[in-house]
Amino acid sequence: MARVGIYGASGYTGFELIKILTRHPGVEIAFATARSAAGQRLSDIFPTLIDQQLVSADEANLAGVDLIFTCLPHGAAELLPIVQQALERGVKVVDFSDTFRLRDPDDYQRRRGKPHPAPELLSTAVYGLPELHRDAIRRARLVANTGCYPLTAILPLWPLERAGLIADRTVIVDSKSGVSGAGRSLSLKTHFGETHETFSAYTIGRSHRHLGEMEQETGLHIIFSPHLLPVFRGILSTIYVTLRPGVSLEEARAAYGVYAGEPFVRLLPPGRLPELRLVQNSMHLAIGLQPVEPEHGRYIIVAALDNLLKGASGQAVQNMNLMLGFEETTALQ
Amino acid sequence: MARVGIYGASGYTGFELIKILTRHPGVEIAFATARSAAGQRLSDIFPTLIDQQLVSADEANLAGVDLIFTCLPHGAAELLPIVQQALERGVKVVDFSDTFRLRDPDDYQRRRGKPHPAPELLSTAVYGLPELHRDAIRRARLVANTGCYPLTAILPLWPLERAGLIADRTVIVDSKSGVSGAGRSLSLKTHFGETHETFSAYTIGRSHRHLGEMEQETGLHIIFSPHLLPVFRGILSTIYVTLRPGVSLEEARAAYGVYAGEPFVRLLPPGRLPELRLVQNSMHLAIGLQPVEPEHGRYIIVAALDNLLKGASGQAVQNMNLMLGFEETTALQ
Amino acid sequence: MARVGIYGASGYTGFELIKILTRHPGVEIAFATARSAAGQRLSDIFPTLIDQQLVSADEANLAGVDLIFTCLPHGAAELLPIVQQALERGVKVVDFSDTFRLRDPDDYQRRRGKPHPAPELLSTAVYGLPELHRDAIRRARLVANTGCYPLTAILPLWPLERAGLIADRTVIVDSKSGVSGAGRSLSLKTHFGETHETFSAYTIGRSHRHLGEMEQETGLHIIFSPHLLPVFRGILSTIYVTLRPGVSLEEARAAYGVYAGEPFVRLLPPGRLPELRLVQNSMHLAIGLQPVEPEHGRYIIVAALDNLLKGASGQAVQNMNLMLGFEETTALQ
Amino acid sequence: MARVGIYGASGYTGFELIKILTRHPGVEIAFATARSAAGQRLSDIFPTLIDQQLVSADEANLAGVDLIFTCLPHGAAELLPIVQQALERGVKVVDFSDTFRLRDPDDYQRRRGKPHPAPELLSTAVYGLPELHRDAIRRARLVANTGCYPLTAILPLWPLERAGLIADRTVIVDSKSGVSGAGRSLSLKTHFGETHETFSAYTIGRSHRHLGEMEQETGLHIIFSPHLLPVFRGILSTIYVTLRPGVSLEEARAAYGVYAGEPFVRLLPPGRLPELRLVQNSMHLAIGLQPVEPEHGRYIIVAALDNLLKGASGQAVQNMNLMLGFEETTALQ
Repeated sequence: MARVGIYGASGYTGFELIKILTRHPGVEIAFATARSAAGQRLSDIFPTLIDQQLVSADEANLAGVDLIFTCLPHGAAELLPIVQQALERGVKVVDFSDTFRLRDPDDYQRRRGKPHPAPELLSTAVYGLPELHRDAIRRARLVANTGCYPLTAILPLWPLERAGLIADRTVIVDSKSGVSGAGRSLSLKTHFGETHETFSAYTIGRSHRHLGEMEQETGLHIIFSPHLLPVFRGILSTIYVTLRPGVSLEEARAAYGVYAGEPFVRLLPPGRLPELRLVQNSMHLAIGLQPVEPEHGRYIIVAALDNLLKGASGQAVQNMNLMLGFEETTALQ
Repeated sequence: MARVGIYGASGYTGFELIKILTRHPGVEIAFATARSAAGQRLSDIFPTLIDQQLVSADEANLAGVDLIFTCLPHGAAELLPIVQQALERGVKVVDFSDTFRLRDPDDYQRRRGKPHPAPELLSTAVYGLPELHRDAIRRARLVANTGCYPLTAILPLWPLERAGLIADRTVIVDSKSGVSGAGRSLSLKTHFGETHETFSAYTIGRSHRHLGEMEQETGLHIIFSPHLLPVFRGILSTIYVTLRPGVSLEEARAAYGVYAGEPFVRLLPPGRLPELRLVQNSMHLAIGLQPVEPEHGRYIIVAALDNLLKGASGQAVQNMNLMLGFEETTALQ
Repeated sequence: MARVGIYGASGYTGFELIKILTRHPGVEIAFATARSAAGQRLSDIFPTLIDQQLVSADEANLAGVDLIFTCLPHGAAELLPIVQQALERGVKVVDFSDTFRLRDPDDYQRRRGKPHPAPELLSTAVYGLPELHRDAIRRARLVANTGCYPLTAILPLWPLERAGLIADRTVIVDSKSGVSGAGRSLSLKTHFGETHETFSAYTIGRSHRHLGEMEQETGLHIIFSPHLLPVFRGILSTIYVTLRPGVSLEEARAAYGVYAGEPFVRLLPPGRLPELRLVQNSMHLAIGLQPVEPEHGRYIIVAALDNLLKGASGQAVQNMNLMLGFEETTALQ
Repeated sequence: MARVGIYGASGYTGFELIKILTRHPGVEIAFATARSAAGQRLSDIFPTLIDQQLVSADEANLAGVDLIFTCLPHGAAELLPIVQQALERGVKVVDFSDTFRLRDPDDYQRRRGKPHPAPELLSTAVYGLPELHRDAIRRARLVANTGCYPLTAILPLWPLERAGLIADRTVIVDSKSGVSGAGRSLSLKTHFGETHETFSAYTIGRSHRHLGEMEQETGLHIIFSPHLLPVFRGILSTIYVTLRPGVSLEEARAAYGVYAGEPFVRLLPPGRLPELRLVQNSMHLAIGLQPVEPEHGRYIIVAALDNLLKGASGQAVQNMNLMLGFEETTALQ
């Protein structure tokens, strides 16, 4: 029985992670921390029938722990010490933040405008996308769990790029996300009255902080427009890509053969487009490919996933399964 | 042209108030304060096409002002000095909080567990419900604007009580409110992910802080269960009342004749029940009366209103119209 | 491996049923019928990654089938022949409609205003509520799956009644249901624009057609007010019950000891009330018990469940597990 | 006092139209028809406090009527006879369908795959967009009210095209619409359970039937992807346009000076993007212009409107005001 610890268990990703781990036959939860809820039970702060004790980070005991999940907010000051201490003690780490996702310290500096706080860790970190980096994840001690938005661009675009079909290096990704992607921390942006029965765009163009990992993994130049949907879970991205003129639908679909054995990626039949319902509460990323004017290479891709599962906590367990030698899909189907 | 000031303009009630006052032909806004947004425009913090400058409370100038609206959170420390200063300078006040709604200081002490901070003001304050206290409001210098939940109980029950039809002094009021009733201040309770696609009860029984005004105005003993609906605006209350055995539907409906000239109270035809859509974005409180077992006096009343209009800002303007001598329905239809 | 058939697989309960059965290790689906979608696959009419062929009722082959689920609309003319034919061929039946839920043909006649179409079947049918009728269900050939609203009244009230604690035989049940309870058939009532961002009451008092089973199972006189919530799944009922004066919270809670071994019924700790999120996508019915004025016996019970699982398809599989000799919770946790 | 008639008053656009006309000081409603609700009152089929009698189309009396609104479903067989009869009798017509929106019968044939049913009427019909065709609307006897999606593309793109700033003739319009755009007719697409808490794309690329009017009015080649939002009212479009390399934000914004006197079009300040809340229940179309990589001419435009007001019924009244000689904004502010 492997033992895992969770830092930051009181957010949505932490909660989903505990739900998955509770049904994992090979894992037990050694501890779950929550900054402001230490000493309480999970059910005291969340409407759940799962009975999980919460402790402060100080009380988290790494002895005998095989792997930790760090589900802390982006930029949390406590993250780096926790990761470093764990690695030093031989505990593997799956980190939910965007701290370790870019491979190149220079790229990090250029995009964030400041140097990476621990460049030596970047060289050991692996981008936690099994479909692209399965073997490296198996050997990794530190895995940077993927961002939820980026997955909806990387997984649909990478096969087309790999097959040499993309003609225009600039691709437009128009994404719509449920509110859970913004987490459980309080902000006006996620206040019911500011989100319900409305719809808005934000950080459109070239300014979202997860643009970097999309471009790193696809090698493309991406115009990215996120929008906030009045739903809780799910992301749907509509992608405008220009392939080489005359590429047929069959040819384009054939590029996705690279996902043939993948348990969690589905190319839908011709004429079908995914919607959020298809993937909510599941681990699947679904892709629909729509020819528009194939004679000019114009295609639209619609991709959807559950941002809390394939986009966060489920992906983290898929990574953990690889790192600890479990069957990759355990507890995820 | 009357001049009015608004304290606390950055919340939902403040915003609705400004929308109404902007189309009021006899009123101009002298100032609008907002604690954290002073120096900004309303459109900087709210998606609105109305162009209103916001100032700090210190910058609010009472000179030449006829009336102020205080839309501050319940229990705000700055409320009392603002009200006292205004009254001393001859400026009338419509207060949105529950500070001045109970007439009897002893009742206040009993219900809140502490003495009223300004008992001398209670004697001058009038409960701002025009349907019951129109003449007093006309003469009042300080009006306590009604609570949104209480209206849905008081207006349907008062005519039956006045007509002597109620047999059982204990009445059950099962209320369901949209989220805007909890205001724009951040809290987990009004976080999108905690409210959307769910439904919950809270402070049920005898513990909600606005039970007092319901009982004061109706003279009844009320069991009150509020619930939080995943909608933005509107309250619907389902009221279980036992009339004298054998009271006919016609007899019960006749009691509502007292509202014959009221512009904003509607008894629906027999067989019709209000729903939120009927009253959202309107000033109307709608009442449906359903006989269940009239031979035993069992009736159900369903009442609905828009909590931000008849339940708050519209009601405040109705009160202002009476206090400043305007036609009562000005800017409200 | 047991073989089961499904009549009416294209509605919400049919879809949930297929989802559950697909992960049941001891069962395979022999056929799934859908009136207007025969010849299509489930994924052609529903956004699902489950690959299930749909046939017409004529093509359904009962040979070698152990049990059928009939998920047809209330009052469907084809129901009775299907049930009779199955029973004659030794195939067990779990019926989702309200046709067989009342035990007494006279009660049926009185409440529906017409005689039961197959009174001889009523004597063999068992009300499919394992918590009350587990042994009878194990032996039953025809089980009438419970209504979703009734469960939220029966399970919380039955222990109090059984313990002799209820003083007033008339109990008020104020229920709020998600829209999925009205099914997938088209009607204005379930049109998005008529349901979203609103809230309404309907058939309040004594007229809802599932009042009968509530009263049959509890022996109480019930005033029942259903309301339609703008959420998809879940029912929350707020129940106003008068116990014997002076019954303490401990005494009342002790009555629920009868559910001690039940896998799917939970009495929440004192001070906690269920909300829909707690039970959505789960098999649990959760109960919160709130003393209001215990000196007068006044209590409020709040009960919640997922209407598509414990309230319909999950309950049906729980019944099937008992009828076919599987572990009762198989595929339900 | 002008007299107007309404054909098709029981849908969402008909209802909004009646709400506006009820507060119009210069107009009275001569009749309002509703196919299946003839003989009822509007409040019998809609939760409204407005008291409007509904008649069948046969009972509609054109005598003394100045103008009719035809709010019938796209493709309704009864439309053409109604329009022809009205025009013959000298009654002006504002038609809500897409029958008369394309100017060129050949264009209609090419896009619809069949000849126009009344090509002689196309020459008299004016596209009802006051910002582009105000004078022609004033003189028109038949006005084709604009589509709701097209407005969000035409109004933001036309000034840029007019100023000669657009470099790439192909423009991507990614639109998201509330459900009311699909009307009140029943369909699975607008069933609550199929729309709530989900999000989907449909007819993306080059296949939506209102692409034609977008291209007619802008002269551009448009890739158009509509999506269905789980909100009731409002459309937000995110538009990806390539201007001439190096066009500055100031230069691009200056093009919108053409809307200087327009009462209902607003270019937001730099850095601001519209969201649905900004325009819901208002007549405004709001435009935000975001430079992305101006050195390469890359800009994103975000435009939003209320599809039932500026996108349908409000626009129709704006057109009526012009056609009947009223102040253009009467009843619309």
